[in-house]
Amino acid sequence: MTYKTPIKDIRFALENVAGFGALEETGAFEDLSDDLVEAILEEMGRFCDEIIAPLNVESDKHGAALVDGVVRATPGFKEAYAQYVEGGWNALACPVDFGGQDLPTTLAVVLIDALNAACMSFAIGTSLTTGAVKALKAAATDEQKALYLEKLVSGEWTGTMNLTESQAGSDLSDIKTKAEPMGDGRYRITGQKIYITYGDHDLTENIVHLVLARLPDAPEGTAGISMFVVPKYRVNDDGSIGEPNDVQCVGLEEKLGLHGSPTCTMAFGDSGDCYGTLLGEENKGLRNMFIMMNSARLDVGMQGVGVAERSFQHALAYAQERRQGRKPGVKTGKQVPIYEHPDVRRMLYAMKSLVEASRGICYANAVAYDLARTASDDGKRKEASALEGLLTPISKAWSTDRANEIASIGVQVLGGMGYVEEGGAAQFMRDARIAAIYEGTNGIQAIDLVGRKLQGDGGAAAKRFIEMARDTAQQAASQDRDQIRSIGARLAAAADQLEASTNWLLEAGLEDQEHLLAAATPYLKQFGNVAGGCYLARGALAAAAAIDAGAGDKAYLQSKIGIADFYADNYLSESEALTTAVTAGASKLAVIDPELLSQ
Amino acid sequence: MTYKTPIKDIRFALENVAGFGALEETGAFEDLSDDLVEAILEEMGRFCDEIIAPLNVESDKHGAALVDGVVRATPGFKEAYAQYVEGGWNALACPVDFGGQDLPTTLAVVLIDALNAACMSFAIGTSLTTGAVKALKAAATDEQKALYLEKLVSGEWTGTMNLTESQAGSDLSDIKTKAEPMGDGRYRITGQKIYITYGDHDLTENIVHLVLARLPDAPEGTAGISMFVVPKYRVNDDGSIGEPNDVQCVGLEEKLGLHGSPTCTMAFGDSGDCYGTLLGEENKGLRNMFIMMNSARLDVGMQGVGVAERSFQHALAYAQERRQGRKPGVKTGKQVPIYEHPDVRRMLYAMKSLVEASRGICYANAVAYDLARTASDDGKRKEASALEGLLTPISKAWSTDRANEIASIGVQVLGGMGYVEEGGAAQFMRDARIAAIYEGTNGIQAIDLVGRKLQGDGGAAAKRFIEMARDTAQQAASQDRDQIRSIGARLAAAADQLEASTNWLLEAGLEDQEHLLAAATPYLKQFGNVAGGCYLARGALAAAAAIDAGAGDKAYLQSKIGIADFYADNYLSESEALTTAVTAGASKLAVIDPELLSQ
Repeated sequence: MTYKTPIKDIRFALENVAGFGALEETGAFEDLSDDLVEAILEEMGRFCDEIIAPLNVESDKHGAALVDGVVRATPGFKEAYAQYVEGGWNALACPVDFGGQDLPTTLAVVLIDALNAACMSFAIGTSLTTGAVKALKAAATDEQKALYLEKLVSGEWTGTMNLTESQAGSDLSDIKTKAEPMGDGRYRITGQKIYITYGDHDLTENIVHLVLARLPDAPEGTAGISMFVVPKYRVNDDGSIGEPNDVQCVGLEEKLGLHGSPTCTMAFGDSGDCYGTLLGEENKGLRNMFIMMNSARLDVGMQGVGVAERSFQHALAYAQERRQGRKPGVKTGKQVPIYEHPDVRRMLYAMKSLVEASRGICYANAVAYDLARTASDDGKRKEASALEGLLTPISKAWSTDRANEIASIGVQVLGGMGYVEEGGAAQFMRDARIAAIYEGTNGIQAIDLVGRKLQGDGGAAAKRFIEMARDTAQQAASQDRDQIRSIGARLAAAADQLEASTNWLLEAGLEDQEHLLAAATPYLKQFGNVAGGCYLARGALAAAAAIDAGAGDKAYLQSKIGIADFYADNYLSESEALTTAVTAGASKLAVIDPELLSQ
Repeated sequence: MTYKTPIKDIRFALENVAGFGALEETGAFEDLSDDLVEAILEEMGRFCDEIIAPLNVESDKHGAALVDGVVRATPGFKEAYAQYVEGGWNALACPVDFGGQDLPTTLAVVLIDALNAACMSFAIGTSLTTGAVKALKAAATDEQKALYLEKLVSGEWTGTMNLTESQAGSDLSDIKTKAEPMGDGRYRITGQKIYITYGDHDLTENIVHLVLARLPDAPEGTAGISMFVVPKYRVNDDGSIGEPNDVQCVGLEEKLGLHGSPTCTMAFGDSGDCYGTLLGEENKGLRNMFIMMNSARLDVGMQGVGVAERSFQHALAYAQERRQGRKPGVKTGKQVPIYEHPDVRRMLYAMKSLVEASRGICYANAVAYDLARTASDDGKRKEASALEGLLTPISKAWSTDRANEIASIGVQVLGGMGYVEEGGAAQFMRDARIAAIYEGTNGIQAIDLVGRKLQGDGGAAAKRFIEMARDTAQQAASQDRDQIRSIGARLAAAADQLEASTNWLLEAGLEDQEHLLAAATPYLKQFGNVAGGCYLARGALAAAAAIDAGAGDKAYLQSKIGIADFYADNYLSESEALTTAVTAGASKLAVIDPELLSQ
């Protein structure tokens, strides 16, 4: 099955759903224009379709391999990565001072969407590099910037995040990796990290590890963690590559999917000869980490959308080709494509509507990210920043939970062929499954939402969002198309339920934190459902306006309304049940002795 | 992680949820007693825990292999299968005339639960054999019975279902395999079948294939399909094994999971030398197939429950062992087991409550199956038969959809270790995924429910079920425990919504079949949700009564109430949204040109 980057859908989501136009208005992006965006999207599509997508099956069959202590990439990755660098794709939203193009991060996020659809295990490495660029830009000394940034911006070198240790995963407070000051600005690093994505590979001549470690006598817990820049090969003052830095990949995980992406166990300083430099302040390593992490969380949400889009296209193509059964009452004659069966269409419309809803959330999140940094006045920047903060855990968790659901439906559409690896759908399900886990599990995202994001500002951002959803619902309810009125009614009802949950959490959470922790996951699901419905409703309203104005492809625009309507019936309708789950309270999750649970 | 058959839970579900006691009352099962059941369950647990469960990881790593035209089973399977036969497990519910024990099918279904939890890829082969016994018992000539039944009852030989061809999967009407009468009672079989579970293996010395094929000049479509008994080795009149029968496994599928279960492409008569005998009447092959298939559908639902139970136990054990993070506000000191975190408990209670709900449905389905054949009066038999028919697609589809969900949560509980194959959780997710596909996809089950089962009797059985759920709800609502009153209220509300969906479907379906086809999947989900909630509520009522009577383990009984309560808040609450999805109507699934859906 051939994959094609859905440029028209992406463009539609940018313009009519996520409000990308606001970025042109800020004036902060000098060269930004419709023509430039169009050109980038077209070229991006060509690159992903022709260069990256053909690697996907190979990446699954011949994944990264550890050979004589060095990780070898999937055949073809190295050449494709060179083209990625050469095309300037890595530099899209990177600082112009270091060779970047300083375009909106939103466009880089769109690239993540398309790259992950083309080949997730190729794509995820690139996000880590741009995350490292952000951390270095924010916290590095001029010297560090001079040594590393240009190469990371271009992608000539890649970056990593070295956080997890076997005893310190979701909770980093127990990190044990040590950093000992040498007195000459260098720190000797010793320790082992696990689950390091693209921790080693042969795509580039150097790798820049950002490593969390403890200084001697650092306070216990997260207040004693610092971040270090630790290159695979030392870098000479003139930027040339020096000696190896005693950093080794000592193991690769055998994973459910993403075989093309090396997941490394990294040993730092096994021979006592690994050195790094401090990034930012002592004991403030988590601050830098969150710079990377927040952007990585949106990126991971986008990964979910990408692989879900691919799964959808795969299932849709199969449903058009595979013939089985006939219309009710017809016993003979040629079998019909299974797309003709309503139950199969239900699966495909479910996939499509969830892809578009999650794409809408992630793109809107990206636009908020850019506006938070570039909007013309302070009030707008603050508002955008609050929206960005609110949407980030939702982009990450809701999109990836839905991606798992979508990819599993994708298997179902293919029936027996879905369960057979040759059918291709199973790979998307296996690959997608990681995204709900890494960069903070989806449970942790949900706790971030109810804690830092909701309680943090007393619910202000959440309530603004609910009002925005209500406005959209009112606009829809006043239209003369039945479908759009129905969307409006369902969105209004769902927003009311979300408000009920929000108010309950704000009150109950003051009384007992356990209520927040117990309700986190259904609340995030409910918020994502409403947000997705709100963004789809905006798209439907824009589509209706375009149809009325006689602009654009009417059948295409009508399909946007149809998909939003399907979503409203099937997912906005879940809101009330989720309020029930949210407001059930912590007592419903009181500890049952685990020994009683399976006897 | 060690697996342990949950004998106490199974016993609780049999007695307090599924109404197993009614089978003792029929008098049809002479030897049946509480003591016998207890002894069987204990021995079953020992067999599954000690002999079968240890094979599970090996079955994934070293699956069935095609070597020189013969399928070799996972190392250890052959010895374990011999013990399965020797223990008389295959014969549990088989006819006493052919060496069986004539115990209730419900007990055989319980065995499927436990065997699939222990090792799904080992277990699924056994269901096919007992399915073949049912078909032969119903339709075979005395000669056929004499040749095959005893060996199939004991399990010395295994049986298969040979239905699918590449162009005839969900729709069997296009089957092309040919059967040519030889005039001596034999038929020459030629054709190729795909996706044949345990089509070949080296566990037994013979395999009895039940094959769908067409006689010359048979009518087109499903009215021209006959069934044939085609042994791998011909059987001499004295029952001894004769010449090979020109039946070959010509390929094994490489699957997402279930590696221990050979999924074969079977070639019949490639050398023109394959012979079988007709089973039952000419052109009535589908009738026999449905005998096997109906029982197989409940079996597959039970497979889902089994693998979900295993996934739950695995996740629960991990959550008790793995330490990460601390209680809110606590910064230092020892990390707590992740079971202490409410969000992790949410995942585990979700898994547990869905396992118990689906187990309740499947066991109740099995009891209905037995009562339909053994209840003392005709009215009761008919009522049980209608309930069995109604519950069969729900057991199959709801349990397996939920099993996929459960197994995916099981991966999530383990976090990064869930995504790594070494962690063990991923296998359950991969293995479970087939159950929603084979024996009729879950979409086909849903269509069976709204069509044959709902429209077929004008909704009589469905309405009886809804009344039963209401009765249970009323009993619960009148209790003095808050939790049980809450369960009662949620069950009553969910049943009302199910009734609304049911009435709408009965009306709308008369007008236009497309409404039924479009609504099938959400209707089945809604029905399953209510049925699961109803059976859990029964369990909770029984637990409360036992606590009040001072009988049994109070903490254990209390956990049953807690889990039922959790289910009610989180799953019964979905009923209203599902009514919205059901009653949205076929227009919401009107054909959108697929070319528009991804551009």
